[in-house]
Amino acid sequence: MTLLSPDRLFPVEPRARDLARALYDGIRDLPILSPHGHTDPRWFAEDQPFPDPAQLFVTPDHYVFRMLCSQGIALTDLGVPRADGGPTEADGRKIWRRFAENYHLFRGTPSRLWLDYSFENVFGLDRRLSSDTADHYYDHIADCLQRPEFRPRALFERFNIEAIATTEAATDDLRWHRMIRESGWQGRVITAYRPDGVIDPEIAGFVENVALMGQQTGFDTATWGGYLDAHRARRAFFIEHGATSSDHGHATARTEDLPQDQAAALFAKALRGECSPGEADAFRGHMLTEMARMSLEDGLVMQIHPGSRRNHSDQVLAMFGRDKGFDIPGRTDYVAALRPLLNAVGMDPRLTVILFTLDESAYARELAPLAGVYPCLRLGPAWWFHDSAEGMRRFREMTTETAGFYNTVGFNDDTRAFCSIPARHDVARRVDCAYLATLVATGRLAEDEAPELAHELTYGLARRAYRL
Amino acid sequence: MTLLSPDRLFPVEPRARDLARALYDGIRDLPILSPHGHTDPRWFAEDQPFPDPAQLFVTPDHYVFRMLCSQGIALTDLGVPRADGGPTEADGRKIWRRFAENYHLFRGTPSRLWLDYSFENVFGLDRRLSSDTADHYYDHIADCLQRPEFRPRALFERFNIEAIATTEAATDDLRWHRMIRESGWQGRVITAYRPDGVIDPEIAGFVENVALMGQQTGFDTATWGGYLDAHRARRAFFIEHGATSSDHGHATARTEDLPQDQAAALFAKALRGECSPGEADAFRGHMLTEMARMSLEDGLVMQIHPGSRRNHSDQVLAMFGRDKGFDIPGRTDYVAALRPLLNAVGMDPRLTVILFTLDESAYARELAPLAGVYPCLRLGPAWWFHDSAEGMRRFREMTTETAGFYNTVGFNDDTRAFCSIPARHDVARRVDCAYLATLVATGRLAEDEAPELAHELTYGLARRAYRL
Amino acid sequence: MTLLSPDRLFPVEPRARDLARALYDGIRDLPILSPHGHTDPRWFAEDQPFPDPAQLFVTPDHYVFRMLCSQGIALTDLGVPRADGGPTEADGRKIWRRFAENYHLFRGTPSRLWLDYSFENVFGLDRRLSSDTADHYYDHIADCLQRPEFRPRALFERFNIEAIATTEAATDDLRWHRMIRESGWQGRVITAYRPDGVIDPEIAGFVENVALMGQQTGFDTATWGGYLDAHRARRAFFIEHGATSSDHGHATARTEDLPQDQAAALFAKALRGECSPGEADAFRGHMLTEMARMSLEDGLVMQIHPGSRRNHSDQVLAMFGRDKGFDIPGRTDYVAALRPLLNAVGMDPRLTVILFTLDESAYARELAPLAGVYPCLRLGPAWWFHDSAEGMRRFREMTTETAGFYNTVGFNDDTRAFCSIPARHDVARRVDCAYLATLVATGRLAEDEAPELAHELTYGLARRAYRL
Repeated sequence: MTLLSPDRLFPVEPRARDLARALYDGIRDLPILSPHGHTDPRWFAEDQPFPDPAQLFVTPDHYVFRMLCSQGIALTDLGVPRADGGPTEADGRKIWRRFAENYHLFRGTPSRLWLDYSFENVFGLDRRLSSDTADHYYDHIADCLQRPEFRPRALFERFNIEAIATTEAATDDLRWHRMIRESGWQGRVITAYRPDGVIDPEIAGFVENVALMGQQTGFDTATWGGYLDAHRARRAFFIEHGATSSDHGHATARTEDLPQDQAAALFAKALRGECSPGEADAFRGHMLTEMARMSLEDGLVMQIHPGSRRNHSDQVLAMFGRDKGFDIPGRTDYVAALRPLLNAVGMDPRLTVILFTLDESAYARELAPLAGVYPCLRLGPAWWFHDSAEGMRRFREMTTETAGFYNTVGFNDDTRAFCSIPARHDVARRVDCAYLATLVATGRLAEDEAPELAHELTYGLARRAYRL
Repeated sequence: MTLLSPDRLFPVEPRARDLARALYDGIRDLPILSPHGHTDPRWFAEDQPFPDPAQLFVTPDHYVFRMLCSQGIALTDLGVPRADGGPTEADGRKIWRRFAENYHLFRGTPSRLWLDYSFENVFGLDRRLSSDTADHYYDHIADCLQRPEFRPRALFERFNIEAIATTEAATDDLRWHRMIRESGWQGRVITAYRPDGVIDPEIAGFVENVALMGQQTGFDTATWGGYLDAHRARRAFFIEHGATSSDHGHATARTEDLPQDQAAALFAKALRGECSPGEADAFRGHMLTEMARMSLEDGLVMQIHPGSRRNHSDQVLAMFGRDKGFDIPGRTDYVAALRPLLNAVGMDPRLTVILFTLDESAYARELAPLAGVYPCLRLGPAWWFHDSAEGMRRFREMTTETAGFYNTVGFNDDTRAFCSIPARHDVARRVDCAYLATLVATGRLAEDEAPELAHELTYGLARRAYRL
Repeated sequence: MTLLSPDRLFPVEPRARDLARALYDGIRDLPILSPHGHTDPRWFAEDQPFPDPAQLFVTPDHYVFRMLCSQGIALTDLGVPRADGGPTEADGRKIWRRFAENYHLFRGTPSRLWLDYSFENVFGLDRRLSSDTADHYYDHIADCLQRPEFRPRALFERFNIEAIATTEAATDDLRWHRMIRESGWQGRVITAYRPDGVIDPEIAGFVENVALMGQQTGFDTATWGGYLDAHRARRAFFIEHGATSSDHGHATARTEDLPQDQAAALFAKALRGECSPGEADAFRGHMLTEMARMSLEDGLVMQIHPGSRRNHSDQVLAMFGRDKGFDIPGRTDYVAALRPLLNAVGMDPRLTVILFTLDESAYARELAPLAGVYPCLRLGPAWWFHDSAEGMRRFREMTTETAGFYNTVGFNDDTRAFCSIPARHDVARRVDCAYLATLVATGRLAEDEAPELAHELTYGLARRAYRL
C-alpha cells in the first residue's frame, strides 16, 4: 500500500501520460535549487532535532492550520503561539490527533499531496493519516526525529538540495548564516535581502529599524544619502553571506522614480512619522527603483512579491501576530504600477527583476506581455495559494504563449515547512512535465525539444535567473 | 433516439469516464435539496396546471428569452409581459414556433442541456426541437400539462425534491407558504428572508416598505431601534414558515460596522430620502453586519449574492420592468469589502455566511483564501451565468486547492424555471463526479475517498450548511 | 521530416481527436475571410517582391522582435527602423542568424506555430530553423521571394483569400486601394475606417488631422456640425473603397451620449488643445456613440478594440516610434463603459458592434452576458496576445455558455505579417474543431450539429457579421 500514485499529476490519456513519465524520469533526480523561501537558518546552524510531529507539520504551516481554523478549530487548540502571551495547546499529541481526525478537510488540496509525500518518502509511512492512525503516526515520526538522519543537515542532504536561500530582514545580523559557514558544513544555505522593514514607513518599527541600520553600517541614516549608502552597505553584507537576490513584499506593485529631492523629502517625512498613506506608498514605490539601481551596481536579482493584504483579521493579529493564515490576496495591477521603474532601468539587460503575483488575472493580461518584451523582467512561478497543480497549470497556460519558457525562472518552494520542500519540487516537476507532454501530444512542441525544456524548467532557468 | 448522451459531461478518457460514471451511479438518485431559488410558492399552494408550453419554458426563463433577444427577436414577440401595459404576444403557439426555429442558438449552452433534459425526462420527447417538430412539441407538452401528474405537486414529488426554498421579500405575507402548510401536503417548501427592499435606500418603495414592516410587526420603524426589532420579528415570522436562511443581493460586497449612532443617523437620512449614493452604500453595508449579528441570535444562514449591475438597459426596464435578462455582472471585490463584517463576527463558528460571485476572477484570488480561513465563511456554488459545465469546473479548479471541498455548500439551482430543477441538479452532479474522477485519475484523491465526497457534494454539504 | 504534426491542436483522446479531424477535414479548404487586419495595401497595388527573409519574417513582426528583445537582443540588431534616424542593422542575413540562433525562445508560443507553418507550407522547408540551418533558410527564402509565385498577389491567391480588409486612418487617401481596383486584378482587398487620429484629442496631430479631413471633404471641420458631416463624407469615401466596417482603438471602452451642445463644446476645446485627460476621454467616448449612429445610417459594422496601454516604454517610443511591441494590455471594464452607447442605440438590430478585449477576465463576467442579450452586440475573436491555442480555447469556454456561438463572428487574423495569415486561420480552424469535438465527445452537442457549426465558425459568421 502506498499513499501516492506513481503517475500522479500526469495527463490521463495514455500517450500523453507516457510522454510525461519519460520526461519526469529524466529530471526527477536533479538536485533541488530553492532560490526563495522561509526556512529558518538556525536549523542548519545548530542542527538540533525538530521538536515533535506537531511542531514539524502543524503549528508552523499556515496552509495546515488555516484550513483547520476555517472549519472552526481554534488556533490555540493547534498550539499556535500567542502574541499576547496567553495559553495555547502545548501537548503535541493532542494537536496531532485534532489534525489527524480532520485530515479529510485536505482532500483535493496541495497540502494533502505535500503531507502524504513527506509521510511516505521522508518517514516511510504507508497507511493514510486518520483518527485510527494518528497515534501510530505520532509515535513513529517522534521516534524518527530523535535519530541523527532526521536532523536538519541530514535531511538537507537527503533532499538533495544544492542551494537554498532563506530570507532575512535588512537589519538581521545573519548570525546563523555565519555559524553555518564557520561550521565547515558544506550545505549551501544563503540569505536574501528583505528590506521591507526599513523601506515601508507603515511597518511597526520603521524608524527604529532605520536607526539600527545606521548603527550597523556607520552611515547617518537620518539623511537620504546616508540611508541609501546604508542600504548599499547592508546589501554588500548580505552578499558576503551568499545573497544573490533581494525580495520586496509590498501591498501593491507600485513603483516611482521621483526626483532625488522629492524622495529625500518623503524619507524625512517618513522618519518623522508624518507620511500620509499615499506618501508612504509613493516612498515604497520609489525605493523599488532605488533598489533596482543598486542591483545594477551589485548584481542582486530583485524579486517583487506584491498583492497580499496582510493581517485581514484584527482579532487574529492582536492575539497571534503576523503570518497566521489571514493574509488575503487582492487585485493587483502591474502595467501602470511598474512603468516608472521600467522607464528608469527596464531596458538594461544586466538587471533581473522577477515578478510574482497572487492575482492570476494578471498572468495573460499584464505579466506575460511585460515579461515578453522588457529585457530585465522574468516571471516568478505560481505563488502561495497558486503553488498547486491547477495553479501551476494555469501559470503555464496563461504565460507561455506570450512570454515563452525562457522568461520564467523555474520553481520556488517559498516555504517554512522543511519537509515539504522535496514534495513541492516534485509537484512542480510533475506538473511541468505534464504540460510539456501535452504540448508534444498536441503538436505544439517537438518531442526532441521537450527533455531540454524539462531540464531548464527544473534546474537551468533557476540557476541562471538567480545567479546561483 | 434520445436527446441526451448517457455519458454527457463525463471525462472523455475511458478510465476517468468509468470512474465518473461509477461515482454518478452512486448519487444520481439522491433526493434534491434546493436550498436557494425563485420558484413561485403559489404553484405548490394552488397546485393548478401550468398554463401552456410557452408559459412554462420561454416567457418566464430569462436565459431563454435573453438569447433570442440577442439575435434581434423582440421580447414582445416572446410574450414577455409589459410593465407599461402595452401589447405582447399572447399566442403560446406562435411564441413556441419562434423559440423552436431558433433552437440552434442554444447550441453549446447550459439552457440547451436543461431544456433537452426536461423534454426527454419530464415529457418523454425524443426528437430534437426545431421548426419541424415545433407543433408536435407544443401539442404534446400542452396535453401533458392538463394531466394531474404534471401539476406542480406531482412534479415536485416526481423530481424527488426533499426540500425547496423560495425567496420572499421581508414584507411578504407568506400566504402561499401558509396555504401549503395548512393544505396538509407533505412537500417541504420553505421560504428565505430577502430584506433588500427594506435595506436598500435606493430601491423604489424603500420608505413604504419600511413603514409596512412597522405595521406588520408593531414596532416603530421610524426609529433605528424599532427598525432592528422589526427585522428580528420578521425573521422570526419567516423562521416560523420554514426559513433557514436570509439572502442579500447588493450591487457590491461592501460591509460596514458603524457605531450605532452613525448607523441610526444614516437610517434616518435614508427614510428622509436624503442619502447620497455613498451613504446608501454604507447603509446597505452596515445592515449586512446587523443581519449577521441577528443570525448569531436566530440561526439563519446568511447568503450574499453581490455583483449584478441590474437593469442595464433603460429602455427594457421602462418597457418590461426588472429581471428581464439585462442584469450584467461587474467586477466585485471581496477582501476589503467583507473586512468590517468579518472583524465583527467572522471568527464565530456558530455563524454561516455563504458567499456567491459573478466575478470568477475572485475565486482563487479572494474567495477561496477567505473561505479557507474564516470559520463563518462558505462558498456558494457557481452562480447564474456560471451555472454551467465550464463554470462549475472552473469553480472547483479555482477554489478546491485553497478552500477544499468542506468550505463549499453543494449545489443551488437558483431558478424560476421549475422543470429545469432536476436538469440542473443532474448537470451539477455529473460535473462534480467528473471533477472527482479526474482527481482520482491524476492521483490527487484516493479512489476510496471519492464516493464519500460525491455524496457530500450532492447532499451532505447542502443539508448541513443550510441547516435543513 | 516535417515541421508540423498533422494532428496538432486536436484533443489527445483518440475518439475526440477523430471527431476533430473529421470536422477539420470538412472546413480546412474553405476560403479565408480576413475582415480585420493590418496588411499593407501597397503590397497588392504594386505587387513587388518582398525584400528579404528578415524583412518578411522578423523586422515587421512585433510578436517576433519583442520576444527577442525580452532576452536582451537590441531592436537595432534586428533591423527595426529608428524613428530618430539613427543606425539600425541593415544586413538581412545577420538579422536572420540572430533570429535563428534564438529560435528556441519561441517554443510553446503561437509564433512558433505560425512560422513553422509558413516555412513548411509556403516555402517548403522541412528541417527546423536553428543556427545550423539559418543560412539554408535565408538563401532558400530569398531565392523564392524573387520568383513570381511569391509576389503578394500570387500568394494572396495561393492562400485562398476571398476577401481581406486593411485598416486606414480616416484621412488616408486610399491611393493603394484605388490602384488595386484600377489594376483590374480581381483580389478583394477592402479598407476599414479607422478614425482614431481625428477622434482622439490626445493623439499627436489631432488638430491637423481634423483640418485635413475638412480639406478632403469640403466641410468646415472647425464646427461640430461640419466635423460630423466630414465623418459622414469620409465614411462614404471608405465605403466606395470597399469598407464594410469601422475600427476604434481607444485605451478604454468608455462611451458617452452627451447632449449635442456639450459634445460641441468638448470638440471646440479639443481643437484648442485645452481638453483635460478626463475631457479627452469623454470626447472619445461620445464619438463612439456618434459613430454608432452613423453606422445606423450607412451600414458600417463597428469594431471596438479597447484596452491597450500603448507605448509603455518612453525610451522605445522615442527611439523607434509606435507599434514596437511595447503596447501592454490593462484591465478593461465594459459594463458601465458601454452603457451610454447601448442605451442610445443598443436595442436596434440593424446595428452591429463587435467587441474585442485584451482582458480575458471580462469574457465570462461582462462580454458574454452583454453580447448574450443586446441585439447589436457581437464578440470578436480572441485578440492579439490571446490569438493562440490556449487563448482561443479560453475564449470559447468562457463565452459560449452565455453568448452561444451565434453572437461571435469567426476569426480575425489582425496581422501585419502576410505569410502568417493562412497559418493563423489554420490554428483557429483547428482549435474551433477541437472545441466542437470536445462538446460532442462530452454530450454537449449532437454529432450531426457540429459540421454546420464548424462551417459557421470558419466562414458563415464572419461573412454575415462583417457584411462581406
